[in-house]
Amino acid sequence: MRLGLHLLLDVAGAPFATLDDPVLVETLLVDAVRAMGAKVLGIHIHRLSPQGVSGVVVISESHLTIHTWPERGEAAVDLFTCGDASRARTAVRALAKALGAERTRFEERVRGAEPLA
Amino acid sequence: MRLGLHLLLDVAGAPFATLDDPVLVETLLVDAVRAMGAKVLGIHIHRLSPQGVSGVVVISESHLTIHTWPERGEAAVDLFTCGDASRARTAVRALAKALGAERTRFEERVRGAEPLA
Repeated sequence: MRLGLHLLLDVAGAPFATLDDPVLVETLLVDAVRAMGAKVLGIHIHRLSPQGVSGVVVISESHLTIHTWPERGEAAVDLFTCGDASRARTAVRALAKALGAERTRFEERVRGAEPLA
Repeated sequence: MRLGLHLLLDVAGAPFATLDDPVLVETLLVDAVRAMGAKVLGIHIHRLSPQGVSGVVVISESHLTIHTWPERGEAAVDLFTCGDASRARTAVRALAKALGAERTRFEERVRGAEPLA
């Protein structure tokens, strides 16, 4: 069965200050969830040492995560959604823009598709 | 730059009771993180209505998530790791076995690889 859609976004060329700001990153994640019309069930944001942010938002049957490497200008985002695919794609692309990405790589994986080996 | 390795595991044919037990699922996620030699920074487990569990574990620069559909015997797991790839693979396969999976689908994505479009 198709369980959900997994969107994988890699970001490069983003500003150090943006990627190293846990408050801003949290705001952007929550904005993305709201843009999907979804509800935040839980959120964890961690600032890493000496820099970087790891953030996870739990959504019903879904999640949104980010890991940032400010010193490289890079971040990895993943969004698992059982909701509307179009809104999810729009939310992820808006997140890339809000992070100040100069370059992005975007992949989609259908999860849970039969047949399983 | 290579930022991390993303392991995507789809599980099918697992027992309803296992996939619908939030305490057991949490234990299995924590066991997987420990098997990787990693440290749990935060954990969120939600039991969904009428059934199912969504769980997220935040690890330093990494995460482990699961969403279960007990009525289908299915679950979707993702593990993002910056640590040892071999230990991560072993931990994910052990998790699939502990969930009682009859069938699995396993994919790996290198995240953050340049060049980005």
